[in-house]
Amino acid sequence: MNAGTIFIYELLGTATLTLLGCGVVANVTLRNTLGNSGGWLLVNFGWGFAVFAGASIAAPTGAHINPAVTFGLAVNGQLDWADVPVYLAAQVIGGALGAVVCWLAYKLQFDTHDDPANTLGIFSTGPTVRSGPWNLVTEIIGTFVLVFWILLSPGASAGPNGIPEFGNAALGYAAVAFIVIGIGSSLGGPTGYAINPARDLGPRVAYSLLPIRGKGSADWGYAWVPIVGPLVGGALAGGLALALPAV
Amino acid sequence: MNAGTIFIYELLGTATLTLLGCGVVANVTLRNTLGNSGGWLLVNFGWGFAVFAGASIAAPTGAHINPAVTFGLAVNGQLDWADVPVYLAAQVIGGALGAVVCWLAYKLQFDTHDDPANTLGIFSTGPTVRSGPWNLVTEIIGTFVLVFWILLSPGASAGPNGIPEFGNAALGYAAVAFIVIGIGSSLGGPTGYAINPARDLGPRVAYSLLPIRGKGSADWGYAWVPIVGPLVGGALAGGLALALPAV
Amino acid sequence: MNAGTIFIYELLGTATLTLLGCGVVANVTLRNTLGNSGGWLLVNFGWGFAVFAGASIAAPTGAHINPAVTFGLAVNGQLDWADVPVYLAAQVIGGALGAVVCWLAYKLQFDTHDDPANTLGIFSTGPTVRSGPWNLVTEIIGTFVLVFWILLSPGASAGPNGIPEFGNAALGYAAVAFIVIGIGSSLGGPTGYAINPARDLGPRVAYSLLPIRGKGSADWGYAWVPIVGPLVGGALAGGLALALPAV
Amino acid sequence: MNAGTIFIYELLGTATLTLLGCGVVANVTLRNTLGNSGGWLLVNFGWGFAVFAGASIAAPTGAHINPAVTFGLAVNGQLDWADVPVYLAAQVIGGALGAVVCWLAYKLQFDTHDDPANTLGIFSTGPTVRSGPWNLVTEIIGTFVLVFWILLSPGASAGPNGIPEFGNAALGYAAVAFIVIGIGSSLGGPTGYAINPARDLGPRVAYSLLPIRGKGSADWGYAWVPIVGPLVGGALAGGLALALPAV
Repeated sequence: MNAGTIFIYELLGTATLTLLGCGVVANVTLRNTLGNSGGWLLVNFGWGFAVFAGASIAAPTGAHINPAVTFGLAVNGQLDWADVPVYLAAQVIGGALGAVVCWLAYKLQFDTHDDPANTLGIFSTGPTVRSGPWNLVTEIIGTFVLVFWILLSPGASAGPNGIPEFGNAALGYAAVAFIVIGIGSSLGGPTGYAINPARDLGPRVAYSLLPIRGKGSADWGYAWVPIVGPLVGGALAGGLALALPAV
Repeated sequence: MNAGTIFIYELLGTATLTLLGCGVVANVTLRNTLGNSGGWLLVNFGWGFAVFAGASIAAPTGAHINPAVTFGLAVNGQLDWADVPVYLAAQVIGGALGAVVCWLAYKLQFDTHDDPANTLGIFSTGPTVRSGPWNLVTEIIGTFVLVFWILLSPGASAGPNGIPEFGNAALGYAAVAFIVIGIGSSLGGPTGYAINPARDLGPRVAYSLLPIRGKGSADWGYAWVPIVGPLVGGALAGGLALALPAV
Repeated sequence: MNAGTIFIYELLGTATLTLLGCGVVANVTLRNTLGNSGGWLLVNFGWGFAVFAGASIAAPTGAHINPAVTFGLAVNGQLDWADVPVYLAAQVIGGALGAVVCWLAYKLQFDTHDDPANTLGIFSTGPTVRSGPWNLVTEIIGTFVLVFWILLSPGASAGPNGIPEFGNAALGYAAVAFIVIGIGSSLGGPTGYAINPARDLGPRVAYSLLPIRGKGSADWGYAWVPIVGPLVGGALAGGLALALPAV
Repeated sequence: MNAGTIFIYELLGTATLTLLGCGVVANVTLRNTLGNSGGWLLVNFGWGFAVFAGASIAAPTGAHINPAVTFGLAVNGQLDWADVPVYLAAQVIGGALGAVVCWLAYKLQFDTHDDPANTLGIFSTGPTVRSGPWNLVTEIIGTFVLVFWILLSPGASAGPNGIPEFGNAALGYAAVAFIVIGIGSSLGGPTGYAINPARDLGPRVAYSLLPIRGKGSADWGYAWVPIVGPLVGGALAGGLALALPAV
């Protein structure tokens, strides 16, 4: 597949991911919405099915929509390193684009929100208790689970034209949605489970640039955590999977 | 398939959609119900599985049950424009019929509700902040995601007698239910995610005509938004899908 | 399959259904539980996956576990009327048995509940607004959706040894679980969605006979509604499905 | 498969189970989390998808990740008793290891929790009303449902390289996740549904040994219940399944 095609599908998939993902946080956060204060499980389902939608759309490229997955697959030897830059660029740009569209969908709600300085959380993640090293640990663990599962799950890497070999493969990208719902429910409490640098960096760039009414800081001091943590977690998963005994 | 058969299955599928979909809003809205104040995630699951039920029943016709899907497929070249009118007529009439049956199921609750003038929301959508153009943007975005996903999702258009080729196809119509749950969770906050003109217009007609105790206005001034927005969103998706590079 | 085998599997499946189904209502109702006041969506998921569990166990008999399904299949011509009595007997006895086991699982909670007279709802359904004819309408509508979906859903009647032909069939009994979650969310508000005479009658008999601390009335005056309503709804679905044009 | 390979995959699978499972309880329990007070359904989904993740990773060994499943399969004649000790050792050690990683992920939240003595529930189960025999009954019933379903569910034991024969098999390990969500929703109210000795014992050992700030008792007096109950329930299911008539 040529670089242009990879770029287009990864961009569209990641944009769908952040459009829906940022959307559910907007829905529970902003005052004038129907989902206001809808709870953590609603957020988890919103992000989980955002992954389902985005991955389906990016199926032709292997549905990475996440630099940590791209990185983990490359470490694991399933992806040519030469393809990595185009994946990453598409994901970050797509992530920003989806966040812009999310802002358009909730434009009236942003304009009438009663606490506009606290809207960064709709776009990007942040810690409930701030401590760089420990926040990093949490992001590494969450991303490790995601990428390790992708590498080991029965049928998870079946190509888009292959008959599912067994079990999970028949679920298609709903399987990874369930895993993301699980990671969010279980490991999302401390840092909001970025587990994806593009999902965090792209929307953070968008937040910085968009003319959002009364917006607050983009908290660039924290931005390295949801980039470094997921990349380390993905690489660890890719490496450990290589070390496992064959079955 | 002849027009009469299309009409019957699309009507039954869309009636099932609005029976269950309006039903969950009745359940969370009306006072004397077991699901009163059940929350936004309950509403999302109710509508999502309403799509699952309705689409399964309308499987012989391709399970559109939504003029935006019909329109998007026609723009995309997957449906003969000559078949469009019978789909649309069946969907709107079915949508109204389902809402009537929903009212019968909740008749005692309508009769004993303490705020009867505010029951339009059980039938049709409305904005939390009213602004025609921005409400339209929100509906266009939500419907675009739905129809674009349908056109690109692996296996989503596999016919009812085909072995699923891979992944999502094995989920059948549950896959589109998950997407609708995701769109509702993520993009339903501002306008209640009609994303389907028949789901909104049919029940609005029913609300106008039914002898509902103490009912309020049918808000016909807003009715064009959930018609025009979804049709534009579906057409944009159908067009963009044509422009993508082959894979 | 001989009558004894049908009896055993239908009994085990229906007992699993009411064990888990009554269990989730016990969990949200009784004071000393971890799920106390867990909400309507929790109840819907509990009953939905109770259907999944029970239907899986009763797979050899076609997984009816519901007299309305048995009745609807017989009206539709898919079941020999001579087999109907053994199905019905197994379902009612199994339904009672599951409720007894549920009571054992929650024995300490029944013994320490602060409002013991109001525990019938754990076992059997009841209306939020009482009116025989309208309660009947609600139960007819809910059961009609269930049985009509079963009869029309793509692949829903695929036998246990058949490769799924398409879509929904690959979900197995999870598909009907999703439908039951949908019906509960959408049509369960007025009467608690019995939609199954055995699920209501069996546990009501158990409630009458068990030495439950401080128990209240078994409300036999209402018991006919969740028997007659589902049977009428199932028969209507079986009949209407016969009248549809072939596809 | 040699014992070393069994050990590694069962350990990784069970560690994933308790990492995510303990994680969701940490998320709803600890003060400084995004999922604080998220409700019982969130806990059920967290544990359910923890089973999905762990079982997928342990697919090569048959995905037991639970001594009650191992025991039930051995009683049922589907597993060589000589393999049982290595399964059990891996499960308990993996269960402890996952809990340690969970503590690392929530380290800052443990350090800032306002009621640190009450954190055992994040690691291990406990009764809402204490009574050894009745708590045992609840755990026996819950585990019986799990193992009985595994043994009887259509396709549930299809090997990892087999094309799914029918229905549930195509869901892969999501099917057992749905059952665990159902058991938690329905039978988890009295004792927190250990239904797995390794899931309880492993984390309890971890709680005893870890330097958790201000931690309370590990309640070893109760620890036998979530060991004995699940093993009895699993053995009963394995035995009853043998006694059923062939179909």
